[in-house]
This record gives sequence, structure tokens and C-alpha cells, in this order.
Amino acid sequence: MTSSALSGLAQGVADDRLAGIVERLDDMLGGDPDLSFQVAAYHDGELVLDVVGGPHLSADSVLVPYSVTKNTIGLTVGLLIQRGLLDLDAPVASAWPEFAAKDKQGVTVRQLLSHQAGLPQATPALSWAELLDDHAAAERLAQSRPFWLPGSAFGYHAVTIGNLASELVFRLTGRTLREYYEQELRRPLDVDFFLGLPREHESRLVRILPMVRPVSDTSIIHGSILAPVVMGMPGPVVDLANDPVSWRFGHPAGSGTGTARGIAKLLAATVTGVNGAAPVLSADTVEVIGQQQVRGYDEVLGQQGRAHSIVFQKPTAAMPFGGPRAFGHDGAAGAFASVDPDTGLSFAYTIARGPWPGGGDPRAIALAADLGRLLSS
Amino acid sequence: MTSSALSGLAQGVADDRLAGIVERLDDMLGGDPDLSFQVAAYHDGELVLDVVGGPHLSADSVLVPYSVTKNTIGLTVGLLIQRGLLDLDAPVASAWPEFAAKDKQGVTVRQLLSHQAGLPQATPALSWAELLDDHAAAERLAQSRPFWLPGSAFGYHAVTIGNLASELVFRLTGRTLREYYEQELRRPLDVDFFLGLPREHESRLVRILPMVRPVSDTSIIHGSILAPVVMGMPGPVVDLANDPVSWRFGHPAGSGTGTARGIAKLLAATVTGVNGAAPVLSADTVEVIGQQQVRGYDEVLGQQGRAHSIVFQKPTAAMPFGGPRAFGHDGAAGAFASVDPDTGLSFAYTIARGPWPGGGDPRAIALAADLGRLLSS
Amino acid sequence: MTSSALSGLAQGVADDRLAGIVERLDDMLGGDPDLSFQVAAYHDGELVLDVVGGPHLSADSVLVPYSVTKNTIGLTVGLLIQRGLLDLDAPVASAWPEFAAKDKQGVTVRQLLSHQAGLPQATPALSWAELLDDHAAAERLAQSRPFWLPGSAFGYHAVTIGNLASELVFRLTGRTLREYYEQELRRPLDVDFFLGLPREHESRLVRILPMVRPVSDTSIIHGSILAPVVMGMPGPVVDLANDPVSWRFGHPAGSGTGTARGIAKLLAATVTGVNGAAPVLSADTVEVIGQQQVRGYDEVLGQQGRAHSIVFQKPTAAMPFGGPRAFGHDGAAGAFASVDPDTGLSFAYTIARGPWPGGGDPRAIALAADLGRLLSS
Repeated sequence: MTSSALSGLAQGVADDRLAGIVERLDDMLGGDPDLSFQVAAYHDGELVLDVVGGPHLSADSVLVPYSVTKNTIGLTVGLLIQRGLLDLDAPVASAWPEFAAKDKQGVTVRQLLSHQAGLPQATPALSWAELLDDHAAAERLAQSRPFWLPGSAFGYHAVTIGNLASELVFRLTGRTLREYYEQELRRPLDVDFFLGLPREHESRLVRILPMVRPVSDTSIIHGSILAPVVMGMPGPVVDLANDPVSWRFGHPAGSGTGTARGIAKLLAATVTGVNGAAPVLSADTVEVIGQQQVRGYDEVLGQQGRAHSIVFQKPTAAMPFGGPRAFGHDGAAGAFASVDPDTGLSFAYTIARGPWPGGGDPRAIALAADLGRLLSS
Repeated sequence: MTSSALSGLAQGVADDRLAGIVERLDDMLGGDPDLSFQVAAYHDGELVLDVVGGPHLSADSVLVPYSVTKNTIGLTVGLLIQRGLLDLDAPVASAWPEFAAKDKQGVTVRQLLSHQAGLPQATPALSWAELLDDHAAAERLAQSRPFWLPGSAFGYHAVTIGNLASELVFRLTGRTLREYYEQELRRPLDVDFFLGLPREHESRLVRILPMVRPVSDTSIIHGSILAPVVMGMPGPVVDLANDPVSWRFGHPAGSGTGTARGIAKLLAATVTGVNGAAPVLSADTVEVIGQQQVRGYDEVLGQQGRAHSIVFQKPTAAMPFGGPRAFGHDGAAGAFASVDPDTGLSFAYTIARGPWPGGGDPRAIALAADLGRLLSS
Repeated sequence: MTSSALSGLAQGVADDRLAGIVERLDDMLGGDPDLSFQVAAYHDGELVLDVVGGPHLSADSVLVPYSVTKNTIGLTVGLLIQRGLLDLDAPVASAWPEFAAKDKQGVTVRQLLSHQAGLPQATPALSWAELLDDHAAAERLAQSRPFWLPGSAFGYHAVTIGNLASELVFRLTGRTLREYYEQELRRPLDVDFFLGLPREHESRLVRILPMVRPVSDTSIIHGSILAPVVMGMPGPVVDLANDPVSWRFGHPAGSGTGTARGIAKLLAATVTGVNGAAPVLSADTVEVIGQQQVRGYDEVLGQQGRAHSIVFQKPTAAMPFGGPRAFGHDGAAGAFASVDPDTGLSFAYTIARGPWPGGGDPRAIALAADLGRLLSS
């Protein structure tokens, strides 16, 4: 591999095979003077693309990529599975007895971690103060009856999957998911993606800029009966991306902080290994966390054709970022990251102002797909 | 609350907060001289709307609201659950051994009561004489193989759910569902909605008038392989709504008889309590019978996006009558009733001549949704 | 029944009730000089239609009807069920211990035989040499992790269902599915449809002619992430229909060889009985193998609204070939066969050059539906 420093609008380095990709990035920047993104890719563990462009971001800027943060949940769960600490087919209540309330004694860890548990919101609804707490929301969710019979349907637990997964990790290990991630993945792998941004990095933080229309406009969710209840938290509103209380906490479902380079390295170090080191997760563990668990109608988003493995999103017709063993997660304001064990590509993309109507930027999804084909051909 | 007698085309009483709703009802009547409906609503147990309009109905008219009758099945089942007499997760065959025939030994009560058992028709098909009998159809269904693997799909058991539920109740209590409902709900709560219209009320009965096109035109069911078999009963045809043999029997799936006021009171008395009395069903029981069990393609109706809790319909994109904990049931010729524990609204609507192509009148569904929002805001 | 020799473009014999059907076949041939098909039908066990037309086929021509061959899997499985040798609800691994690898110990025979096991391809992908072998592909599939959680979804195991079913049959009986079919069904019933064409019949073989556009063009599969992996076998390509290595082997998923008359007789002899003999399969066994197991989105084909019983396809909105108890299977290049126990019709259709874009010729599906209605009315 030979990488070269770039001379166009997109600044950084790129493998020489990626000249066409770099040209595409330059074109994107040339066509929209406000557009600001970071893109990073590893192939078989080597950094092949590390680029930044636009007025709002520099190479070291960190921002909150919303639900791209959920990649930390999936990878942490994978590590726990590999270490024999977490059994996907065990009842959640075997580790967390209070969770058995309201006929949930049979709900499995697998269901909980693939959006099947019916708990995208508690009864009554949770406040942001409870959600941005290591245990408060989890305790309330444990006392709630699922909106649907667990296992009969699935729906995006947009925020609560972080609280639920973290409490489960806490019950299994004595550490919250944020702590386990920090101690067992982020720090040993030297990854620039945090659950809870340390004070010394705060000067690097860049605010997510508002879309042309607001991301919280749930009118885009047509026909979902649940969306208003799931998205309408009572009490003071927290801006997950820009409120310090959020990124200092580092909610594993939505307010991690980092660079595209950091996120791509996290995926590469765990799935393919970086710079000659063995990957943290075995090929078998990668298959386990990447195996599709659910497919079809999402009860919360009101959309057909959604698919999840353990926590992660799977490629679909609407989001064709890789092959059948690929997985990843997008964010509400354009960011996106994925890994494909069959092509060896780890990919991440952050953006300062996401394109309407939100979700992973389609340009990023196409980049992931094209990079995978290009680098594995 | 202050209610006032009305002076427009819609006659009756309405809470003063509902002036806009009353105006809408007047407009509906003004625009269609044939339109005849009853509308009733309770909010947190108080009657807030009790209105009748049009040439075919008076305030005390009773008619057959077709499958709105199924609300009696769901509420009776709820009462049995609460009393510890019915376990949703038990095999049907544990109470009804003959039901185990044809590999149905594992079919659960939950599956049976959420249209998952694959028995929308027997093999060979049932006659109306068997269906309008407390045991004959049930015995035939018990000997039939399900059209689909139970639990793998669902489809509207338009008529047979009444026979199946009634036999189950009979095996559990020694009383048919009609008897249990009459003795434990209708009579103690003084509800004007009957499973089997008593002779002394027959003078109040108003015939359901034919739609512009017939409701039995199954050509509206596109692509369903099952519909012709499910709907095509052999032998003499019974008009469920207008044949005395039907409403004197009171089939729990489709030929109850009553007023909108009666149906709304039934839902209110069981779910929210009326006039200061405690509700018959606890909040927990209400959650149990209202929890979504199935969602998606209906094998009989050939429609996507259908959803059921225990017996009841759930709000969907096509039928958005309430929030995620609401439930109810529409009828084939326009009638509709629902309750939403989160807004405290119990609602019922009957209509003498339903709008083509049948199912709950969309105007009634919008009224339920708007009343819920208005009264809980 | 009275059959007459025909005098139009379609040559053969037809029951006198089928004059309209014969006219339709003549019209089809008259409108397309290249069109070449065989059509055969049994009603209640009597041959009522046996017709050939067009320049490429004679009455005794045999060809490879692609996945119409899968009817042999379903019928052989039915025979094993009836003989008590195969239990649909047993784990596959109870007969085939190596299959338990990669967390597949709980996968049931029912799931395996209804495209739910998540093994439409092995990891890494199988070669044609492995697929056209009695055990090699099966061994590789047994060591693979399913693409989706078994039971959570289904997708057409276009080729591998033959290898998987055959290995299962081998483990249960000591004979491959090809051997069991030959010895227990084809030979005793004297059926002109082979899994492995004997040398003495090779002179009868007619090559499947290419469609206007190639059937292997997977661009017609929109949005399926799996299709490229499932369809893209590594190494030398085998033409399933025309390569001698394929039809001499007789892959049970796709390269059987025979006439439409032979296929129709196979379905009739097993399901309705022929010429006064009892059917091989009891009415109860026929219900078991015909019961719908899955319905909805096919993970491989990327299509909604697909449905399978045990191996067989079920009638759907897009393929309405019969009533709710009918079953059958189409092929990639136009051939089609089905049986409906409720109408007594067994039907088969072969075609030398299938219509774009492949799958069962819609004209054949309409013929099956119309013949069923006509002969049972």
C-alpha cells in the first residue's frame, strides 16, 4: 500500500488505489461550500483513507455522531460474549432479577439487544435526567410492560438500548458499559472515540449544526403509533449532541464523541486487527454479533425493511453498505460507520450538518459500499 | 364537567369542551340526509358525549355492530385472566383436550386469542348452523388442521374466534362466553349491549341497511388465497346483522346488539371505571389484554399493517384511533369502539348504513383520536 | 370422462370438458411460433390433459424444469414423515450431529425444510463441484453459521435445500434423497421424472433454450444483499439445465429430468392416487406437507409475499395457482407444477424457452388455477 497526501479540497492521506474516491470527495466539497465531513477507512487493518474537508471541521475535531455511538455497544457485547460473560440465549432476568417484572422473565439477552424487548420507552415515559444516568432509566424500564409481546416484533430502542445494555453489562461485570468500553477497548486500543469526553479533549469538540429542517421533527415518521411516545420525553429537553451534560456522560446509544478516524480504528482493531495485531474479536465472535436477528417493520420508526444483528444495523435495500456479513450503525444527523469482514473494510464518516431528513448520509453509505468492492477486488 | 343538551342535527348531550366535535357531527349529518349514527364517549368514567342523528336511528335504537361485538370477547378474557382462571401461555389443549388433534397440542391460548391459530375456517368448511351454536363449530375446529403453522402467521378469524373463545371459556368455567359475559359483566354493570338480545328489547332493534355495494363482495380482498374459503360458508346463508336467529343467539364475534352508549359504557366500566366506581379490570390486566401480540400481513384479509392485542385491534397507520396502549374493534359495516387507558377515553359509534367498502368508518376513527387528544390535553 | 385426440396446434388428448383450455393453448402457440411446451393434468387420478406444442418439443421430450424438481424433495419428505422416519420438530442435529456446529443445535427439520435455516450458501461459498456431490456441500453447510438467526426469517435456498434435504434423508435412511426417490416413488409409480437421467433416456433430452435475456442476470433481484453471494458460486460454472454432469447427477433442487406428464403423474399418484389406486400419501400427510410454514419477505430473492409449506411453494397473490391447501413449485425458466387436494387437480407444464424474467410462466399458473376451478365445479 502506498498512501499519498492530498492536494484537493479534501485534506489528508489516501491509498493510491483510491484516487477516484478522493475525486468524488472533492466533488462533494466543491458542490456545497458548507459541507464538512471526516472520512476514514481501514482495509485489512491498514489506514487507507483519512480525510477531512469543509469549513466546520479539522482533522482532529471531535463531534457527537449520534447513534453511530451504538457501535460501541455491539463491540462491547461481542467482547463479553467472547469472554464467556454474556450468553445471548439466557433470560435477561438471570443476571438482572428485577427485569422479570411485568411478565418479562422469559425475555432473552438476544431479544433485548436486537430491539425486540418492546421497551423503547418506559411506562410512564422517562425524562432525559433518567436517561442520562447509569441506572435510573434502567430501573424504570425493568418495571415496565413491553409495548409488544417480546419476540413478536421489533422497534428501534433509539435511546433506551443504551440504558438497557449498560445495566446488563453492569449486572454481569460490575462495570457500566461506559466503563467496560473505556477500560477494555478504547484505552488499550488507543481509540479516539469516547463514551464521556474527557475535559482535556473538550477544546476539540465541534457542535453539530442544525439541519435545514430539525431532526426532531417526528412528522417524518408516518404511521408509527409509538414514535410520539418514544421520542417525547417529559421535562427539560437535552440536546444529545450539543449539551455538555450529554457528551460528558457519553450515552452509549447516542452521545459518544470522537473522530471518524477513531471510529474506523475501533471497528478495525476489533474486527480485522490493525497494523499487524490480531483483532480483538475472533472470526466466530464477529459472525455471532453480525448475524441478522430481525428483519421487517420497525414498530417505532414505522418503516419496512429494517434489519438488525446484535445491536448493529445490517445492510438493507435502503442502506446497502456492504455484504451479508457486514454490520454497522448510522446516526440521526448523517454520520455512519460499518465494517465488512468479507471485504476487510472498516469505514467511518462524520458530518457537521447532516442532510435532511436525517439518518446516515446516503453518500457515506455509497462510499462504504464502493470502498469495499474496490479494495477487495 | 358541564354537559349541555344539543340543538343542532345531532341530538343528545355533550361536554362543553366538545363544541367543535358536535359541530363536526352536525356537518356530517347536514351533508348526507341518509346518514344515521349514534356516538358515545366516556372520559375518565364520565359520560361526555351521547349523541344520535339521522332518520334511521333514535337514542335507544339497538343494532348489530358486527365485529365491534368482539370487544366483549377481549374484556371477558381480561376478567378471566384477572381472576386467575385463564393463562395466556397455557396450551389450549390443557383445558380442551380434543383441541390437540392434528398437531395442535402446543397451540397456546395467546395464539388462539390473537388470530394466530390458523383456524379461520374448519376443514371441511363450517355451515352457519354450526357457527351459531355454542359447541358444534368449536368441535369441528378442534378436529381441523390449521391452514398455517400456528404462531408463524396470523389472519382474521372473522367468525370462528367467537366459537373458539367461547368453547375455551366453557371448558374453563362451565359457562359459555355469552353466559359469562351476561352474568359477570353486562348485568352487574348495567350495560346496554347484549350477546343474545332479550325478547323485551326486540322492538328497539333497527336493521343494518345495505351499503351502496354489498359488504359480502369479497372482490375487495385482493390476493388473499384464504378469503374465499373463510368467507364462503356452505349451506343456507345467515345475515348476521338482520336475521333473528343471529341476534337472538348473539355470536360473540359478530352479532351482539346494543347502543353506542352501551358499548362505550362497557369499555369505560371495565377499563377506567364509571361514575366513581373502580374499573372492573386492574391497570395491569388492561396492559395485558392491550399489549400488541401480532403485526403485519393478515392471511385472511390479504392486508399488510394489521395488528392485534389479545382479541382486540391495535391502532395502526390505517386505523390511528389512539396511542400505543389503546385497543378496540371495528365492524364490517362502519361501527367502531375503542378505549385508550392513557387518555381515559372510551368511545363507541354505530351506524345504520356503513360506508363502502366496509370496516370501521374512518370518520369514527378520527373522532376517537381527536376526542382522546382533546380530553387529555 | 371422455378424452379426445386434438386436431389444432396443441397435439395430444384432452377431456371433453377442456375444450376452452385447449383453445387457449392453441392460441398461445398460434401467437408465438417459437413457443414450445408440454402440459399435463390429472383430475382425481385420471389423466385429463396431455398436450405438447411448438417446434422444440415432442410428447416424449424430457428437459430440466429447474426448481420444479423440488417437488421430489417435498414428496419424498412426505413419505418419510408418513413412515415415521422423519420428525419435522426434531433438531436436524439429532440425525446429523455435525450440523450442530456454529450454534445450530436447535435448528429443526421443519426450519431446514422451509428455507428458514439461513444456509442458502456456505461460508466460504460452495463450488458447483461441491453442490453436485451427494455429501461435499452438505458437510460444508453443516460447518457454516447461518446468515440469519434460524427461525427469524426465511430465504430461498435455491440450490442448497437439495443438498441439505438429501443429507438429512441419508442420515435417516442410509440412502440419498435421489436413491430414496428412485426406489420408493419413481420406479414403483412408473413416473417419467428422474433424479439422474439414465443413459437409455438421454436421446430424449432437449436443451433448455436461452431466454431473450439471461436467467442468471441477478440485476432483477433488487435490494437483496444475499443474492450475489448465494448465486455467485466460485470456480467453473455449471449450466444446471444443459450440462450433462448436472442432469446425469439429478440435483433434487434443480436438475431433475422428465416430461410434464411424468411430473403431473408423480403429484397425482402421491396426492390423489391414479387410475383407481390409493394415493401414496394419506390425506393427513398431504395436509402436513402442504401447511404453510412461512410467509413474507424472502431474504435471498428480495421479494415480499412469498410463502412455503414443507419445501413446496404455496399459492400467493403473485402466484395464485390454487386454494389454501394447494402446493407446488415453479422453475427458473418457466416450468411449473402443482397439486390441489381440494380440487383434485395435479398439473405440470414444461417449456423449452421460458419467458423473461423467469420463474413459473404466468400462463401456466393461470392454467392451473382455471383447470382446478373448471374440473371441481
